[in-house]
Amino acid sequence: MPGRRAAPRISESTVRRLSHYYRVLEEVEAEGKRLISSHRLAEREGVTSAQVRKDLSCFGSFGRRGLGYNVAHLRREIRAILGLDRRWRVAVVGVGNLGSALLLYRGFARQGFDVVAAFDRDPARVGQKVGDLAVRDIVELAAAARGGGFDIGVIATPLRAAQDVADALVAAGVRAILNLAPRKLFVPAAVALRTVDMTVELETLSFALSNLAPPRPRRRDRRTT
Amino acid sequence: MPGRRAAPRISESTVRRLSHYYRVLEEVEAEGKRLISSHRLAEREGVTSAQVRKDLSCFGSFGRRGLGYNVAHLRREIRAILGLDRRWRVAVVGVGNLGSALLLYRGFARQGFDVVAAFDRDPARVGQKVGDLAVRDIVELAAAARGGGFDIGVIATPLRAAQDVADALVAAGVRAILNLAPRKLFVPAAVALRTVDMTVELETLSFALSNLAPPRPRRRDRRTT
Repeated sequence: MPGRRAAPRISESTVRRLSHYYRVLEEVEAEGKRLISSHRLAEREGVTSAQVRKDLSCFGSFGRRGLGYNVAHLRREIRAILGLDRRWRVAVVGVGNLGSALLLYRGFARQGFDVVAAFDRDPARVGQKVGDLAVRDIVELAAAARGGGFDIGVIATPLRAAQDVADALVAAGVRAILNLAPRKLFVPAAVALRTVDMTVELETLSFALSNLAPPRPRRRDRRTT
Repeated sequence: MPGRRAAPRISESTVRRLSHYYRVLEEVEAEGKRLISSHRLAEREGVTSAQVRKDLSCFGSFGRRGLGYNVAHLRREIRAILGLDRRWRVAVVGVGNLGSALLLYRGFARQGFDVVAAFDRDPARVGQKVGDLAVRDIVELAAAARGGGFDIGVIATPLRAAQDVADALVAAGVRAILNLAPRKLFVPAAVALRTVDMTVELETLSFALSNLAPPRPRRRDRRTT
């Protein structure tokens, strides 16, 4: 591929699907397979094969009719599109239960995300080691961000502190934030923000359980989310 | 309100917004406010006030023109709609870093979700206490589920075990699953499944960072996600 193409306008949901295709391609490559059909990719992701072909055609036509996609090539292409052909440095702000779990989780590093710093404002936590990292005082956050110490800030603080931390990250020039605190955060349009709120997910399950029809005989149709 | 109404057909995204409104109403009630306008609710959630009124009108008209919504009443209504007027029992399967963090997190209990059981297949973990709970052997999972021991199963296993655990939960009659393993799971249509995949979120941030325009002068528009 001759250098990086200009990014086409693609939706967040397309990016999410690319991320899932990438995961499938990694698995399939590890199994030693060289080719994969759009049908197989679709089946693994619970989407239609037409959707797969449409998603992938956004970036040029990689597949060959009747043969399918070259697994290694397609994986490399998606890797480049997602920006995973480099490593990203992540700082975790808030080292409670969830923050600590993220510091100890090795799956992020496998996907190119290195947790390089951890901050907390609790003096009892500052200086403690969690995994390989010593927790730093949150007053050092802005200087670390301004110095280019990390690319992505993960907010794992209690909800009342979350907006202040987001504001501090933005003011220090951080342009990508993953928010795990259970509240909406507001950031400038130029900053990429994603929110993961497990309580909201549990509440949608609560709604579903409260409103589901009573169990019916087992059906063979399966769906995904 | 005369009993629970028949559930209207509402989308998952509406349920998510209701969950967020509920959170705002809790905060506002704690501040001692009695009334809230659709405009204020919208502002806190980054949606339009027309959207708020539309969402809430699905369940009957609670607001009074010019006065706004009665905070305590609206909170109770949404609580009932979301099925949060009862407590739900949650089992966590997989007590690694993330599973342990969930067992120690007190925020779920505040919202009506009691973590009542934890399972793992690693003999080194079985019998260990995490918070107040002793980790049980995963071979006991089906019996615990069949006995009605819990309502919601949270899958926090490594990705290779996740589908097997989902199949076991479904076979044992569990009808709501929160999947935190980084892969798509397949369940029958009658089972409610939500997936939280932090790696996918990080990858959408990686994509955004790779494709964002260079930083521009600070703008005052703020957006939310």
